[in-house]
Parts: sequence; structure tokens; C-alpha cells
Amino acid sequence: MPSFSDIANLLRPRFEDELFDFLRIPSISTLPEHKPDIARAAEFAKQQLLVAGLEAVELIEGSGHPLVYGEWLGAAGKPTVLLYGHYDVQPVDPLDQWDSPPFEPTVRDGQVYARGASDDKGQVLANIKALEALRQAHGELPVNVKFLIEGEEEVGGEMIASYVATNKERLAADAALVSDTAMYAAETPTICTGLRGMVYTEWLATGAERDLHSGLFGGVAPNAVFGLVELLAKCKDASGRVLIPGFYDRVREPSSAEKASWERIPFDEDKYRRTEVGASTLTGESGYSVFERLGARPTFEVHGIPGGFTGPGAKTVIPASAAAKVSARLVPDQDPEEILSLMQDFAAANAPAGIEVEVRLIHTAPATLAPTDHPAISTAARALEEVWGSETVFIRSGGSIPVVGDFQEHLGIPTALMGYGLPDDALHAPNEKFSLRNFHMGIASTARFLELLGQAERN
Amino acid sequence: MPSFSDIANLLRPRFEDELFDFLRIPSISTLPEHKPDIARAAEFAKQQLLVAGLEAVELIEGSGHPLVYGEWLGAAGKPTVLLYGHYDVQPVDPLDQWDSPPFEPTVRDGQVYARGASDDKGQVLANIKALEALRQAHGELPVNVKFLIEGEEEVGGEMIASYVATNKERLAADAALVSDTAMYAAETPTICTGLRGMVYTEWLATGAERDLHSGLFGGVAPNAVFGLVELLAKCKDASGRVLIPGFYDRVREPSSAEKASWERIPFDEDKYRRTEVGASTLTGESGYSVFERLGARPTFEVHGIPGGFTGPGAKTVIPASAAAKVSARLVPDQDPEEILSLMQDFAAANAPAGIEVEVRLIHTAPATLAPTDHPAISTAARALEEVWGSETVFIRSGGSIPVVGDFQEHLGIPTALMGYGLPDDALHAPNEKFSLRNFHMGIASTARFLELLGQAERN
Repeated sequence: MPSFSDIANLLRPRFEDELFDFLRIPSISTLPEHKPDIARAAEFAKQQLLVAGLEAVELIEGSGHPLVYGEWLGAAGKPTVLLYGHYDVQPVDPLDQWDSPPFEPTVRDGQVYARGASDDKGQVLANIKALEALRQAHGELPVNVKFLIEGEEEVGGEMIASYVATNKERLAADAALVSDTAMYAAETPTICTGLRGMVYTEWLATGAERDLHSGLFGGVAPNAVFGLVELLAKCKDASGRVLIPGFYDRVREPSSAEKASWERIPFDEDKYRRTEVGASTLTGESGYSVFERLGARPTFEVHGIPGGFTGPGAKTVIPASAAAKVSARLVPDQDPEEILSLMQDFAAANAPAGIEVEVRLIHTAPATLAPTDHPAISTAARALEEVWGSETVFIRSGGSIPVVGDFQEHLGIPTALMGYGLPDDALHAPNEKFSLRNFHMGIASTARFLELLGQAERN
Repeated sequence: MPSFSDIANLLRPRFEDELFDFLRIPSISTLPEHKPDIARAAEFAKQQLLVAGLEAVELIEGSGHPLVYGEWLGAAGKPTVLLYGHYDVQPVDPLDQWDSPPFEPTVRDGQVYARGASDDKGQVLANIKALEALRQAHGELPVNVKFLIEGEEEVGGEMIASYVATNKERLAADAALVSDTAMYAAETPTICTGLRGMVYTEWLATGAERDLHSGLFGGVAPNAVFGLVELLAKCKDASGRVLIPGFYDRVREPSSAEKASWERIPFDEDKYRRTEVGASTLTGESGYSVFERLGARPTFEVHGIPGGFTGPGAKTVIPASAAAKVSARLVPDQDPEEILSLMQDFAAANAPAGIEVEVRLIHTAPATLAPTDHPAISTAARALEEVWGSETVFIRSGGSIPVVGDFQEHLGIPTALMGYGLPDDALHAPNEKFSLRNFHMGIASTARFLELLGQAERN
């Protein structure tokens, strides 16, 4: 009988071809014109679950983009693992900064470049392929498996949130496995213990009833774009500290053990600044390390200010309305609803004369923190160490994966965040990529994790 | 022999049809895709000058959009008037706020709605039609006429500026007449004595080398959009006072006679706020009246902030670059080049950590102030009074017509700014319109001005 690694090696070319096929589908969830591509990507994921030998495979249609579900429950007496990933991707603008088209996967130096390569198509497919190779090697899986894949991760995941809340029995499991994060560094197996939460909002400003000529009315008319500029500038000081009253009230400091563990991780701040951030200086709150600022401190970011004149050349308009895309990343124990309400109060109290500002919620997610002493987390760490041959490091990620909070709240299970991305994968940016070595090592790591979980129960 | 007004009445329907034809051409000068429409509008203006009986009519091609020129020099011993207008128009966004399509002229309640109706196609055509009707009524014109029409007024007018500077003899005249301003109120004949100048710039901000994920890098990475927000907020205080050092150094206070004349003009500030600005409050520097803030005080406006994510929905990006469209309206004796340099110094000194900001010039215009005791200005005032039957008021406009500065500097002549627009014409905004009554009264007013100028010389 061939071993798992014999099988995985044999299937390597086909696994890569299927990854490229998945990446060719422009399943951008936030843009309505890509709805047909979302449907194609969901169907592709469904077929992949079928090929992996899962059962009860189905598309779950609802208010938003469909969920994909499949399961294999043939390992009597073994634990059940709930796997999660997403088939939707971020928009691709600015398109002119891509070295190859975002939906024509292109391999350069062992990396496949495409939107969604690392976030999350390459990673979720690695987990599906781990199941397929395990089934081909052993005829069965070492544990029971439930697999849920969503198409709204990049737009707030409303549908999966309500599905998890209302399908606790179907999704019941001992632990969850999610591969949608990055390793701390190449060849450094990593488990992510914390995820930041999120409040994503749109701040809608209105001034005069209509756009006005800046010559004829400049000096007396409120300007909605400048009104937002004035208000937003009051939200954060030059050191990066958020000035919205109450914003930090519930922030939980990391334990001294966790802080100490971060200090042991080798980190070259200057190299990080140059190669990963690509900036002349790192910004952010003084008195906090980079690890703390990224994982354990909340943020306030303005992503863009639609409104007014933004075309080429000159137009002399005093805009009557404008909007700002604003998000805050949250940490335990900040409450997204409370932060939203603080933002709304602040905007109401600080909007400049003549400008009304309404803060509208787009979506929220709570921050999460995994218990490192849970068997699923420690087994995941061991599996990674065996496959990669190095000690596993525990870090927090600054990103948000809302479903991890839902699994914790509704299913009462922790999530092992075994990510196979790399820090320079350019998520949400031009030239997103995924290491093909990590794709295959990811398949092996996930498979080993499930094998060890299955053995642990037998002992 | 029929009188001027008989002729003008007879030609009324055709004049309106031709106005609508002119308005149907989407000659947006700032958008490259409208270059063919610019050519059509220039050709249309040329044909109109020919129909009016002008000679030496030609398109003057050069670096930018063509100038249209025509002249009639048959009034020996009479003064020469240089008429000016523009055939280009502003962009039309936001398109969804137009009640009828911007390039399908639609008459409602005696107003024709279309982009360019008041600024400036309706007004320049009124002047052309005054010439046509005068010629038809009298077989000749009462004065010598030179007519120059440009297609770059809305984008800085580079070509006409250099043309005026290098064609002083061809354009030599005793005074200029420009109809590109608004009357103080309906039925209140108005001469505009002052125009604000302009520095239009683009502030380009760069942070990291590429767009970054706000989860993975939020807390350490500079954000180009927020960097601009921070910098721009420092440029102006909550009372509307510009904080760029040196900005007000050369501002000349209006004379006490001019201030006193403004105080005599009937003005209902609350009604103005409600009906013309349409805002909950008027903004701007405290201690200055609305007339002063609009005509005699400089401004600093942000027109839009391209960059980052501005689409529908959510994208969690830390933008690597962004830009702000920023202009300052200037008053005598501010120097546009000096103000640009003050902006550049301020941006360099105040850009936030990790953000570089370059202030690029798009175009400039100097402020102008006309001598009210010049014969052309007093004759214009008298002509308006005769035609409209009310006293002419003298106001300053907050807008900028750069060519008026060029006429003053290179030709040494003052400009009579006899505008036929109304304050609610919605220039540069959705639902721009022009009163058809004012179109015809404008034709009569311009004709009367030229007649009086011709008589004055005879006496």
C-alpha cells in the first residue's frame, strides 16, 4: 500500500493544475458584477469536496453567496474536526500594479501569483487535497470531518455567521481547523493563537444640498470632503493613538508569558520594515512592540474617501456629500457593537459646522484568543514540527477571521489556525502570491494533524 | 428699417434652437475621451461667428484645445472691443443627481437645463447673437469687434494665456467684454469688478511601497489616505482660517468705499443660506461678511481624495498612495506662484511620519480688480440700466476667469464683466441651467453696450 507521501507526490501535478483552475475564477465577493464567478467558484469547491471523497456535499443557498458543505463521518469513536475556508477573494485594484493579470495564475520562482492564491484558495485547497490524499492512501480518513466553505469572507460573512448560529448540531465537532493565516517566516511552522476583530463602517457626510462651485461659494459653503478630513483627523493622533473616548477601555493586556514568548521569536525590525512593509518608517503607538501593535492593539484606519472630484485634471467643486471607508481592528475584550456606538457618538459630537455625519455599519467580527493548552492546538503544533522539522511558534495575527469567533461562541470549540501563507504574500494587494512548496507542505501538515488526532484518541 | 429689437424678436426661435444645439455637444475639456466633442464645439463656435458676419474667422490650433477667433474692423474711428467666452464645460458627475440628461437641453419654467447652459455656452452665444442681430438691423456694427473663444477655461486655459501674451497686436483693443459671471439677483443688472485668482494643485502622498492588508499590517504601516487627512486638516482651522504660514501676507483689504457699497446691496443672509447654498449653516472666517468671504478673502478647498478603496462594500486596505485635489482661491495681491511655494513648504514640513507628499501644480490664475471709473465699465453699467430698467450693482465674484488677468497684463485693457447668469444656475454642479429670459436680455444688453460705446466716441 503506498504511503501518504507517495500518493501526495503522485498527485502533485494534478493538485497544482486544480489550484490554477480555482485561481482563474474571479470570485470577487464585494462586486455585484462578479456574482456569476462566485457561483462558479462555489461549484468548483463543491466538486473538489466530492473528489476528496466527502459525502452529503451540497451548496447551501441563502441571503448571500452560497456556502459549500461536505462531511465524512466514517471514523467511529474518533474525534470530529470542522474545517473551514473561503472561496471568495478581494478586489484587484489598482490593476496596473500587477506584474501578471490577477486571474491568470503565473508561476515565478516557485510562487504562484494570482488574486486569492494565499487568501484563501491555495490554503483551503491544500486542506481539501490533504483529505483526498489521505483517502487514496488509507481508504478512509483518520478522524471524522466536516468541511464548510464560504463565499463572503471578504465582505463580512453574514451568511455563515447565521448558518453556524442555527446549525449547531450539524456542525458539532471537537475542534476546528482553519488555514487562512500566514507562517511567521518561511520554514517556521506557526500557529496563530489570536485574531483581531473588526468594525467596518462607512462615514457618510453631507453638507450643502448640492455640489457648489468653489469660486462662487468658496468661503461660505460647507465642504463634505473637508468636513470628513477634519473629523477623521480628530480620531487619531500623530502617534497612532485613537482619540475616540472609551476606545481602549476594554482592551485586555497580553499575559506576561505571551509577551515573553514574543520576545523569544527572532525579529529584525529594520528588515521587516524594509522588506515586508516597504516604508521609510514604522508607525503606530509608542511604547508597544511591533508584535503588540499588530496582534494585541486595536487600530483605526481610513481605507478611502469616495466623493467629490477624483478624476484626472481639475474640477472646482465644493462637494455636497462624501463618504469615508473606516475600520477598526479590535482585540479582546473590545465589543464591536460598543465600538461602533463610540464612533457614532464621536462623529455626532465632532462633525464640523454645516456637516452632518452618519456612521453606518458594514460588518463586525469579535476578536478571538485560542487556548494553547487545548489538545487540538498542541496536536497541531506537534504535526507542524514533524512535517517542517522546526519548532512551532505561537503568534497572534492582526487579521480578522470572523467565523473563528462564531465557532467559539456557537459550537464551543477552539480553532487551530494552521496557516501556510507567508508574510510577503501581498494579501489584498497587487501581486498576491502563494508558495507552491507551502501548498504541498500544507497538504502534508494538515494530513499529519488529522492522523495524530486520530491516534491520540486511540491511545 | 426694422429696429434691433424687431430683429432680435424675429430671430428668437432660431437663436434658442442654436443654443440647444450648442448645449448638446458634451465638450468636457478635462476628460480626454471628449476630445472629439471639443473639436465639434470649436467648429460650432466658428460657424456661429461666421453667421454673425465676422471676418478672418479661424480655428487656432496649438498645444491644447483650439481657440476660435473672428473679427469685424469696419467701424473706422470707433473703439475696438475684445469679446471673450469659452465653449468647454465642466464634467457632469454625479450624473445620478441630474433631473434631465446633462447634454439633452430641457426647458422647464423658462430655464434651459444642461451642462454649460450658464457657464459659458449660453452667455457667449448671447454675445455672438448680439452681433448677428446688430448686423441684421443696421448692416454694420457700431464698434470694431474682436472675438476670442477658448476651449480650456475649465482646465486652466494654458493655450489662451500664451496666445494673448504673444499676439498683443492682433488682439489690441480698448476694452474687453466678458459674459461669464452671474447677476447679483434676478432682474438686478450687475457688473463684476473683481475676480479671485486660483492655484489648483494635486497633493500626491506615498506611504509603503504597496497597498497592505489592514489586519496584517494595521498598527505599523503608514496609510497614505490617512496621512493626507492629517496633513490637510492642519491647513485650515475650524473657523475656516488657512493655517499655512504667509498665506494672508499679501491680501489687500477692500477699500472702505467698496465695503460701504456692499453694505447698501440688499442681502438676506438667511434666505441666501437656504436657497442658494442649501446648507444648515454658512461657514468661513469669522469677522468677515459674506460678500467679503466670497469676493475679497482667499479660500482653501479640498475637492476630492482619489486613492485607496472607494468602491461599494468593504475592502480592508492600507493604501500605499493617494492624492488630494486642492485649490486656493486668491485675492489681490496674492501671488499664485508664491502661494504654491508656501503650500509645498507646508506639506514638506507637516507630512506625517512615513508619508511623503508632493504638491504638484495643475494651473494658476491671478486675481483681478477692474477700475470702475474706466469709460468701458461705466458705459456697460449704463447699458445694463437702460435694458433692465434698474440700477446696476457692482460686486466682486469669487470665481476665477484667468484670461481677464491676461488681458490686463498683456493688452493693458480692463474687462467689463457683464454676466447674465443667475446665482442659482448650479455652475459645475448637477442641473446647471440658464434663464432663457436672461439669454435674450443678454443679447439686448450686449448690443446696447456696443451701441453706446460707438456713440460715446462720436460725441
